[in-house]
Amino acid sequence: MDFFKQVNREFLRRRAALKWGAWGPDVLSLSVADLDFPAPEFIKEGVRKALDEDRAPYASLHGDPDVLAAAAEKVRRVNGIPVGPEDVAMVPGTMFAIWAVTQYALRPGDEALICPSPVYPHFMKKVAGAGGAAVHHSLTLAPEGARLDLAGIEARITPRTRLIMLCNPHNPCGVVLTRPDLEALVDLAIRHNLVLFSDELYEDMIFEGTHLSPASFSDQAFETTLTVFGFSKAYGFPGFRIAYVVGHGPHIKAIRQKAYEILVHTDTLAQAAALAALTHGGAWLKDLRAHLVRMRDLGLERLRAMPGVWCPTPQASPFLFPNFSAYGKTSAEMYDYLLKEAKVVLETGSDFGPAGEGHLRINFATSPDVLTEALDRIESALAKLERRG
Amino acid sequence: MDFFKQVNREFLRRRAALKWGAWGPDVLSLSVADLDFPAPEFIKEGVRKALDEDRAPYASLHGDPDVLAAAAEKVRRVNGIPVGPEDVAMVPGTMFAIWAVTQYALRPGDEALICPSPVYPHFMKKVAGAGGAAVHHSLTLAPEGARLDLAGIEARITPRTRLIMLCNPHNPCGVVLTRPDLEALVDLAIRHNLVLFSDELYEDMIFEGTHLSPASFSDQAFETTLTVFGFSKAYGFPGFRIAYVVGHGPHIKAIRQKAYEILVHTDTLAQAAALAALTHGGAWLKDLRAHLVRMRDLGLERLRAMPGVWCPTPQASPFLFPNFSAYGKTSAEMYDYLLKEAKVVLETGSDFGPAGEGHLRINFATSPDVLTEALDRIESALAKLERRG
Repeated sequence: MDFFKQVNREFLRRRAALKWGAWGPDVLSLSVADLDFPAPEFIKEGVRKALDEDRAPYASLHGDPDVLAAAAEKVRRVNGIPVGPEDVAMVPGTMFAIWAVTQYALRPGDEALICPSPVYPHFMKKVAGAGGAAVHHSLTLAPEGARLDLAGIEARITPRTRLIMLCNPHNPCGVVLTRPDLEALVDLAIRHNLVLFSDELYEDMIFEGTHLSPASFSDQAFETTLTVFGFSKAYGFPGFRIAYVVGHGPHIKAIRQKAYEILVHTDTLAQAAALAALTHGGAWLKDLRAHLVRMRDLGLERLRAMPGVWCPTPQASPFLFPNFSAYGKTSAEMYDYLLKEAKVVLETGSDFGPAGEGHLRINFATSPDVLTEALDRIESALAKLERRG
Repeated sequence: MDFFKQVNREFLRRRAALKWGAWGPDVLSLSVADLDFPAPEFIKEGVRKALDEDRAPYASLHGDPDVLAAAAEKVRRVNGIPVGPEDVAMVPGTMFAIWAVTQYALRPGDEALICPSPVYPHFMKKVAGAGGAAVHHSLTLAPEGARLDLAGIEARITPRTRLIMLCNPHNPCGVVLTRPDLEALVDLAIRHNLVLFSDELYEDMIFEGTHLSPASFSDQAFETTLTVFGFSKAYGFPGFRIAYVVGHGPHIKAIRQKAYEILVHTDTLAQAAALAALTHGGAWLKDLRAHLVRMRDLGLERLRAMPGVWCPTPQASPFLFPNFSAYGKTSAEMYDYLLKEAKVVLETGSDFGPAGEGHLRINFATSPDVLTEALDRIESALAKLERRG
C-alpha cells in the first residue's frame, strides 16, 4: 500500500497535462478524473509484450481476437452478461462510446432521458451534438446521501424519446443503483422500445453495495442495452485511449461500424494495455479500493467539519460532491472563488446538470497529503466568507 | 537492405489481420496498404521510452507538446509550410482526418470535387457520410503513365461546392503532381472560397519527381488548405492509430475540436511512435525507398510482359494500377477471378471511382519472392482467359 502513500507532484505537473499541467505550481488539482498514480507495471509490461510481438500492422477491425475474448470472458464472469467476442467492440475510450451511442440512437429533435442526473457533462454535450434534447430525471441530494426516486419517470417519456442514459456507479454522486431501480429502467426501455445506454466505467471503484449490470437481467435486457466498460479510471492510463462496448445484434453492429468508419480500428497498443488489465488486474484493484475508501472517509470527515458544507456519502467512484450553497454562491462562482482564494481546482457541479447546482466535484484519487492540503486550503478560504444559509 | 529481402509469412497471417489474416493459407495478399515488414526498432524504442516515462495520464488535448513541436519542425523543414505547434492537430489516423474534414466542410447537399480521381475509396465514402456528393475530375490513364489535365475543371464547380479533395502523391496511381497543377488547384480553391484538403500520406514514398505541399505556396494557400501527413504507410505501424493535420485558424481549430469531442485526445503511445518517426526516420526512409523502387520495377516489368495488360508507371506510392480490360471483365469480376483462380487478393479499381474501372490495385510493399509468386499466379490465371481487346 506504500504505492499510494505519496504522489510525485513534479511528474503530475509535467505529464498530467489536463489535470495538473494547465495550472500554476501553486495550484492543487482535484478536478479531471485522473488517478494521480502511475499506471501499474503489469500494464506497461503488456504493452511491451505487444511491441516485442510486432503487433503493428492493421489488425482485426473490431478488436484483436485475444482482447475480445478476454473482454467477453470478464463480462460473463464479473458482469453476468452472456456475451461472446462478437458482442464486444473495442473503442478508443468512453467519450467515443457516448458519442457513438448518441449518434446511433438519436436523430435531430429526439430526446434522451438522463437518469440519474446530475451526470458526466459529456452525456448532455453528445446528446446536443446529435441534435437531441436531454430530459433529466434527478437524484435527490441530501446530507445523508443521494437517493433515486423513480416515481414520475415514465411521464418524462414522449413520442420523441429514443434513449435512456444511465451512469452506474454514478459520476459525480457515487451512487450504486439497486436491482429494483435498474429493473425499472430496463422495463421502461423495453416497453417504450428505447436503447438503454449503461456507462459502467466506475465498476471497479465500489466501496459499499454491489455492482449490477442491467444487461445481465434477461435476454431482452441484453438486447436493449449498450454497456460501456473502461480502464482509464481504475488503472490510471486515460492517455491510452481504450474502452469496450458490449451489446447485441444491430446495436453493437452500429457501434462497430462507427469505430471502423472513423478509425479503421482502435489502437493496437491501447488494446494491449486493456488485455493486461483484463487478465492481471485483480490484486491491483483490491489495493486501489482499499486506498480509495480511506481517501473517501478522510474527505468526508473533513468536509462535514466545515461550517455550511454538506456532502452525500458516495458508495463508489473517486468523487465527493459537496454542497456549498450556504455561502450564497453558484457552483461556478464557488469554483472561481476556490481557484483564486484556495488555489484548488475542482469541477463545477452545475456542469453536470441542473441538479448539480450548488455542488462542486472533488476527485479524491490522490495521496492523503494532497487531499489534506487541498481541504485545508478550502477550509481557510471558506472561513473568509459570510454564510447566508 | 537484407531487412527487406524476406517477409515472415507466418507472422503476417497471424498479425496482419486485415491484409493477410482474412484469407486462407494458400492466398497471397497484395491488397490493403500495409507494409509487409515489421515496424523498425527505433519506433518500438520510442514507445518503450514513453512507457518508461509513465506517459499515461490524460495529456494535452491536441497533442503532446514535444510531438507537436517535432511535427511542426518537420513540416517547416520538409514541406516548407511556415507552421507552429498551434497549427498542428494530432489525430488517430488519416481515416479520422478525412472524416473530420468532410464533416467540417460539408453540409447535406454540398459537393466535394475529387481531383484527381480515381482515389482512395474513403474519400467518396466520407463525402457521402456527410450527406454530400462527390464530383470527379479524373486522370487520364494510359500505358505510358497517368496524366492530369485540368482543362474543364472549373466547370465542375457549382454553388454547392465546398471542398476540393486532393491525394498527392496519389493513391492508387502513384502520380506526383507538378507545381503548375497544384498552383491551379490552390487558385481554384481561393477564388471559389473552398477548403482544399491535401492528403500527403505517401510523401515518403517518392521515386521520381518532387513532393510539393500546396499549403507552402503562399499565406493564402496555407489559410485555405488542410493537409494530412502520416506514418502508417512508410513506417509499417498502421495498427498504432496516428496522423497529423496541419492548417490555420478556424480550419485547424475545427479539426482539433472534432478530435476532442470524440476522443478527448489522440492516444499517447501512438504519439510516441510518431515522435520516434519524426526524429529518427531519415535513414529508414532512404532504405525503404531503395527497396520500393526495385519492387516497382520488378512489378512493372512482369505486368507489361503479360498479354493484354497495361500499367501506368507510378512515380510514387507502393501501388501499381494495371488495366486488365482486354479480358472483357469488370474490375470486380477480375478481382473475383484472380482471387479464385490465382489465389491472389488485389483491390478492385472501380472502388476508387469510375475512372478506376478496368484496373486493379497491386500493393508491392512486400518482398521480391511474394511479389514474384503472386505475379506468376496472375500470369497463369490470365493465360486461361480469352482476350477480347
